[in-house]
Amino acid sequence: MKYVYLYANGKAEGDASMKDLLGGKGAGLAEMTNAGLPVPPGFTITTQACMAYYRSGQQFPEGMWQQTLDALKKVEEATGKGFGDRNNPLLVSVRSGAKFSMPGMMDTVLNLGLNEETLQGLAELTGNERFAYDAYRRFINMFGKIVLGVDAERFEHAFEDYKKKVGAVLDTDLDVDSLKQICAEFKQIVKEATGEDFPSDPLQQLERAIRAVFASWNGRRAVDYRRVHKIPDDLGTAVNVVAMVFGNMGNDSGTGVAFTRDPSTGEKVIFGEYLPNAQGEDVVAGIRTPKKISQLQQDMPEVYEQFVKVAEMLERHYKDVQDLEFTIERGKLWMLQTRNAKRTGAAAVRIAVDMVHEGLIDKATAVLRVEPGHLDQLLHPMVDPKAEVKVIATGLPASPGAACGKVVFSPDEAVKMAEAGEKVILVRVETSPDDFHGMVAAQAIVTARGGMTSHAAVVARGMGKCCVVGCGALHIDYASENFSVGEYVINKGDYITVDGSSGRVIFGQVPLVEPKMDEAFAEFMGWVDDFRKLKVRTNADTPNDASVARSFGAEGIGLCRTEHMFFEGDRIDAVREMIVAESKAEREKALAKIEPLQREDFFGIFKAMDGFPVTIRTLDPPLHEFLPRDEAEIEALAAKLHITVAQLKRKIDALHEMNPMLGHRGCRLGILYPEITAMQARAIFEAAVQAKKAGFKVFPEVMIPLVSDVNELRLQAEIVRDVAAKVFAEMGDSVDYLVGTMIELPRAALTADEIAREAEFFSFGTNDLTQTTYGLSRDDSGRFLPFYIEQKIYKEDPFQVLDQTGVGKLIEMAVRLGRSTKPNLKIGICGEHGGEPSSVAFCHRIGLDYVSCSPYRVPIARLAAAQAALGVAKASSQTA
Amino acid sequence: MKYVYLYANGKAEGDASMKDLLGGKGAGLAEMTNAGLPVPPGFTITTQACMAYYRSGQQFPEGMWQQTLDALKKVEEATGKGFGDRNNPLLVSVRSGAKFSMPGMMDTVLNLGLNEETLQGLAELTGNERFAYDAYRRFINMFGKIVLGVDAERFEHAFEDYKKKVGAVLDTDLDVDSLKQICAEFKQIVKEATGEDFPSDPLQQLERAIRAVFASWNGRRAVDYRRVHKIPDDLGTAVNVVAMVFGNMGNDSGTGVAFTRDPSTGEKVIFGEYLPNAQGEDVVAGIRTPKKISQLQQDMPEVYEQFVKVAEMLERHYKDVQDLEFTIERGKLWMLQTRNAKRTGAAAVRIAVDMVHEGLIDKATAVLRVEPGHLDQLLHPMVDPKAEVKVIATGLPASPGAACGKVVFSPDEAVKMAEAGEKVILVRVETSPDDFHGMVAAQAIVTARGGMTSHAAVVARGMGKCCVVGCGALHIDYASENFSVGEYVINKGDYITVDGSSGRVIFGQVPLVEPKMDEAFAEFMGWVDDFRKLKVRTNADTPNDASVARSFGAEGIGLCRTEHMFFEGDRIDAVREMIVAESKAEREKALAKIEPLQREDFFGIFKAMDGFPVTIRTLDPPLHEFLPRDEAEIEALAAKLHITVAQLKRKIDALHEMNPMLGHRGCRLGILYPEITAMQARAIFEAAVQAKKAGFKVFPEVMIPLVSDVNELRLQAEIVRDVAAKVFAEMGDSVDYLVGTMIELPRAALTADEIAREAEFFSFGTNDLTQTTYGLSRDDSGRFLPFYIEQKIYKEDPFQVLDQTGVGKLIEMAVRLGRSTKPNLKIGICGEHGGEPSSVAFCHRIGLDYVSCSPYRVPIARLAAAQAALGVAKASSQTA
Repeated sequence: MKYVYLYANGKAEGDASMKDLLGGKGAGLAEMTNAGLPVPPGFTITTQACMAYYRSGQQFPEGMWQQTLDALKKVEEATGKGFGDRNNPLLVSVRSGAKFSMPGMMDTVLNLGLNEETLQGLAELTGNERFAYDAYRRFINMFGKIVLGVDAERFEHAFEDYKKKVGAVLDTDLDVDSLKQICAEFKQIVKEATGEDFPSDPLQQLERAIRAVFASWNGRRAVDYRRVHKIPDDLGTAVNVVAMVFGNMGNDSGTGVAFTRDPSTGEKVIFGEYLPNAQGEDVVAGIRTPKKISQLQQDMPEVYEQFVKVAEMLERHYKDVQDLEFTIERGKLWMLQTRNAKRTGAAAVRIAVDMVHEGLIDKATAVLRVEPGHLDQLLHPMVDPKAEVKVIATGLPASPGAACGKVVFSPDEAVKMAEAGEKVILVRVETSPDDFHGMVAAQAIVTARGGMTSHAAVVARGMGKCCVVGCGALHIDYASENFSVGEYVINKGDYITVDGSSGRVIFGQVPLVEPKMDEAFAEFMGWVDDFRKLKVRTNADTPNDASVARSFGAEGIGLCRTEHMFFEGDRIDAVREMIVAESKAEREKALAKIEPLQREDFFGIFKAMDGFPVTIRTLDPPLHEFLPRDEAEIEALAAKLHITVAQLKRKIDALHEMNPMLGHRGCRLGILYPEITAMQARAIFEAAVQAKKAGFKVFPEVMIPLVSDVNELRLQAEIVRDVAAKVFAEMGDSVDYLVGTMIELPRAALTADEIAREAEFFSFGTNDLTQTTYGLSRDDSGRFLPFYIEQKIYKEDPFQVLDQTGVGKLIEMAVRLGRSTKPNLKIGICGEHGGEPSSVAFCHRIGLDYVSCSPYRVPIARLAAAQAALGVAKASSQTA
Repeated sequence: MKYVYLYANGKAEGDASMKDLLGGKGAGLAEMTNAGLPVPPGFTITTQACMAYYRSGQQFPEGMWQQTLDALKKVEEATGKGFGDRNNPLLVSVRSGAKFSMPGMMDTVLNLGLNEETLQGLAELTGNERFAYDAYRRFINMFGKIVLGVDAERFEHAFEDYKKKVGAVLDTDLDVDSLKQICAEFKQIVKEATGEDFPSDPLQQLERAIRAVFASWNGRRAVDYRRVHKIPDDLGTAVNVVAMVFGNMGNDSGTGVAFTRDPSTGEKVIFGEYLPNAQGEDVVAGIRTPKKISQLQQDMPEVYEQFVKVAEMLERHYKDVQDLEFTIERGKLWMLQTRNAKRTGAAAVRIAVDMVHEGLIDKATAVLRVEPGHLDQLLHPMVDPKAEVKVIATGLPASPGAACGKVVFSPDEAVKMAEAGEKVILVRVETSPDDFHGMVAAQAIVTARGGMTSHAAVVARGMGKCCVVGCGALHIDYASENFSVGEYVINKGDYITVDGSSGRVIFGQVPLVEPKMDEAFAEFMGWVDDFRKLKVRTNADTPNDASVARSFGAEGIGLCRTEHMFFEGDRIDAVREMIVAESKAEREKALAKIEPLQREDFFGIFKAMDGFPVTIRTLDPPLHEFLPRDEAEIEALAAKLHITVAQLKRKIDALHEMNPMLGHRGCRLGILYPEITAMQARAIFEAAVQAKKAGFKVFPEVMIPLVSDVNELRLQAEIVRDVAAKVFAEMGDSVDYLVGTMIELPRAALTADEIAREAEFFSFGTNDLTQTTYGLSRDDSGRFLPFYIEQKIYKEDPFQVLDQTGVGKLIEMAVRLGRSTKPNLKIGICGEHGGEPSSVAFCHRIGLDYVSCSPYRVPIARLAAAQAALGVAKASSQTA
């Protein structure tokens, strides 16, 4: 079994196609080597080795270590140095590299191979003892933290304390003696924390570092990241062992990160940052604020020119924007990494469109290049330009969009408050992978330190979450839970607004406005629509929602919840009168008051959806939801209805249910009170004929909810069809319409062949179907569902991502059974899953006609449908 | 198409095998005719004609009427009389006759063919004008009520008023002039009610009577009956047109109903009643109290002897107890009907056993002869013989068993109070089919009038419901809602106790005792066990329940609900302490108090079930069910737990759920609080090892509830197996055990292949599975489910009878998937359907290993399992 792949001297054993085996980094390094680019020699231990390691109880698989030693020898030959050689020591970096990059989240150890002896060799070779000790203290720190698990703060505190003691401001202020002291102190810290001396044998260092990389695959931060990004757990990580080059050997050295295009806007310009006289992690960690890449042109014009050529070559080679890491060692450029760049939604769309125009990729590739979730960013609100805002501070615009929320200072607090339904903004000095869960929970992230490629910025962009970084003016006090800036003191719980597009942090709550979608977006969505097969409708209950959704490309309404109209204005009074009615006659009297109001609503919706079908669901929620709960309201209502408080309370009590989700709701209402269904049908058909007469094209689809047996649908459909016939006769005109049903109970799916006899369409209500299939109330799952997701008892939150194994099996069965009765049965989905990409892909695969989702999800659903049609179930493949 | 089957002159076109086509009565009459028995000539219009009539919009199918006229001609020839012939008129009876008899529930018209002319002929021929007018007034009354739909009370009032006016006590006190007056008055009533003259054309009378029989098939009372007795709606009824014979032609005439064995006890003795000088409906309607059949032996010894011979012959012929109707016309015996007799449970068992001993039937037939529901009667409580009782009155012991309840006087009230959870006794002067729903709702029925074959008696026996009839001492006042008898006045809502085995009506509530099962029962159940393949277990939570169930033949426990033990004694305190615990440590402290108590319970259950498996379910209900709700209790508990009332309330509030059925319960508790599962596992295994050491054979099966995903089961099973290993090590001994799961959520059924990887057995929790599959809360369905059943929107109450179409499909899928993973997976059912015969048959058919039901249903489940194994899905076939 070959576990180790070498690259050295312009030749590599791997190539770009071997991402599964070598990880993204390893494959990139091999490819760059083969392309003749300046890459330090090194080798990659495969992801198969990692998985074999776990399978065999955390033992290196047979042969792996020997192959590692052999490769190391080749690297020694290529560099002319010796690993552990006192006179000419080879140092290496050890870093992880999975198939899907998890930037900033996997552990990296630099300068491995250093000990008290090789240190001397390094000092002598470079003629720079200070450099050697600086490298050594970095190594002890990193190795101690990452491999040996020593609390990083212990090193940092010791380092800061020492700096304070000697009056140093910058790290570079420390002299060689100080660094010697610090190295000694660091080793002492390691000994105290682990009970062992810091390992001095380079081979032992290497072995333990490799194990640490493997271990990080199952570290909490990696697992969390995979969960959010839906990356399988059995891919494993590769290990990259690369000969060190040094960006911190003086002002003719440096290190940097750059993108071949602007990952925030998509503009075609080299975009990035570099730090002179620094090692790689200085840039990423955001400890020192880096310079713009353009500065390199002035500092080292030849290197810059070479770099630009390399960048262009790599983008053409990979046909995608590249995210590059490089180091300059004494004026020589070394490429350390290339990978497809993460980008904002706006950038993703613009880059995809530009590259089509440039002839670099075709339209299908362009469509596959944009993650459906990315579009969310394009549709995010922005700060209203007309609003008067008080800008507290301005930082770097790390991830676009805008958000308001309450300030919190700890990730745990962010999670807690978000779970309680609060919108929160996470404010941190800087972020680390340990803050990840808080970033997920927050509406936006603000940091005082760090640049555009800092942890906070990279992670926020990946999540499409508004983020401002490097906002140095903020004085954050974790202990007293506030931050001050100028005259402002903002306490925990105070509102701020964050504008990730401009970098502004704004006082209080500020009105946000919807973004306009630009030409690139329109062009891109045009291609999307060319590829997709699924229709995309929207869930909308008002003419306004319908219009918004239509502007996002909705092709009709898949779910109009009539009961939402019941609360508007004072019509709730008539609804309540209907509910407390003691006889059919009284009920009909109240219904007669509601009917014209509903008719008006429907007219507005038909008008807004001119030319498209509109699916209207008859009354669904249990009636007690419309009655007041508090004493004063009850008294007021009783007076209004001319009944006693006792009578009203008796009614409210009578309507009380143990499990309203499984109670008297849905078509069960219309079955017991057919007059309600009749009223709604009348409102629908009168509005439809009116709209038709006014010149609009209307296609009403009446949908009966919560059907468990074909007989329920039959009885309700009879009422609807009877009323339609009457209304058409009265109004002297008719419209085409359908009567169908929600499939939202397991029994409806199981008996779909029978139900299809009476149904002209099916629409899967996956919210309720998920609740009943799992026996899981969304309202009540808060006490255990997060734990279930965290512990991976459920692979995903089934209310977010359609459960294809269980619920999906019912859906497939219903489609098959329904179409066995009616081969052309129109079938859609109107649960919230209708806007979730993997669920949309599922809907495509099983042959649904349409999905329906909330207005803002419509473009996402369109894109997901196109990608599904292009045979890509998971859009995440393009992040590789 | 042949629609009419003749029988006349000792030859019939049909026979006993043609029940489907001719109905029970028609087939019986044909068979008796062929057997040479004295049957009046007549013909049967087929059930196919009835269904064709409905299919064609209530038109007689082509040819039917002509065939009817042809057959009528043959009857005229056989009797030598003419239909409508003034000089020698043929009169006929028209009665329904479906495949399954619905005694007293289908309309019968006698004396059809009478009009002002034929009346004269009848008078002349019989030389008895009074007889002729009496027949005429009966005919107008019956035809008016049944065919023309005139309110029967109008005839009754008129008749009673007239009797009062002329001072008549008995009907026979009326002279011919009075009867003439009455006939005229009755015709006037018909004219007023219908606006038409009473029809005088005999053929028109016949046509309309046939239509009325067809119509009665879909009358409310027939539909109700079919619903209760699970008879399909598409069988249709036949129509029997038979030449009239007259039991009311003087004291040498009479009419009667008899059984070849006692239908109440099964004793082998002719059992029945007859009324001299009366027409058939006088016996059935219970208006006159009839004489015992033995009286006939004295009154007409030759006729009696002939009748006994006929009865014996028919029983041998049909190999079952016969229910016979006969009429004696001027000393000549005519057989009007034979059918297999309805009987009590005790009689069913005794007759089946006796007939095997008599060599009449084999054991398999015997097993098929007893309806599973019949056994319910054998297991019903009886009045404690040692109890001091105040007997209010004694009537006829119409249906055995005993019951206590609150007195109600109207069937609607009975239904209303029963729905509110009250046990009620329906007290009526006499019952009619219109009272049927009230009889279903009541615990017992008491009537002031009527005999052992009256409506109340027959219906109550059919339902296995305790009933006392003919309790003439009761003075019932419907208006003031009470009855008086001697010194007692019993008002609506007062308690009485009814003993249907002795006929006693007893004051107040009296202790009831369990019946002993006799030798015939034991012998019968032995045969049952020889035939069945399914094991039968019981649902029992206490050692006592387990012992009772074992005495009923339970072969282990299929469901032991551990939480029921939580409420016993003061252990609820420790449970509550556990629930309000704020940390795992506190929780474990409280659990440590519960563990020894649970261990003790389990020990008792293992002991009671020595040699049989015991399935123990881990904690299932949501924790808030264990906390108090009312203020005073909350205060007391807070004090006991040394916390503030506010703290306790906060805890209670925190545990509140919108939909507890779908909330934090089942294994979701054990997943979040693994220490609860661990405690329960410890109690189980410690008890098991203890019991083993004490010499008992124990087979614990630990069952994890509410699993929706294999991961839940995996985690819980790990805990159980870990604890088992620990306990076995600690105690130095071990027992065999299984860990399995409830399948009670649709998702569990859908992913049963995955779940079977971790499960050693499945047990279907069909209660919850029905709730989630239908999206229907049993607690909340009261407002609409009865309407659904009534309107046949659901064919059956899915909580009573397993829904094979929907829920059953999931179950079959789970069995198939589960066994695809583990071919020998043990599978049972522990929902309440486990004791319902048609559901047991389903379980047999799909290959389950066992059913589990409440202790008193165990014999029923055993019998249902045996019948299923004998290839009879519906035991009701033997009622035919």
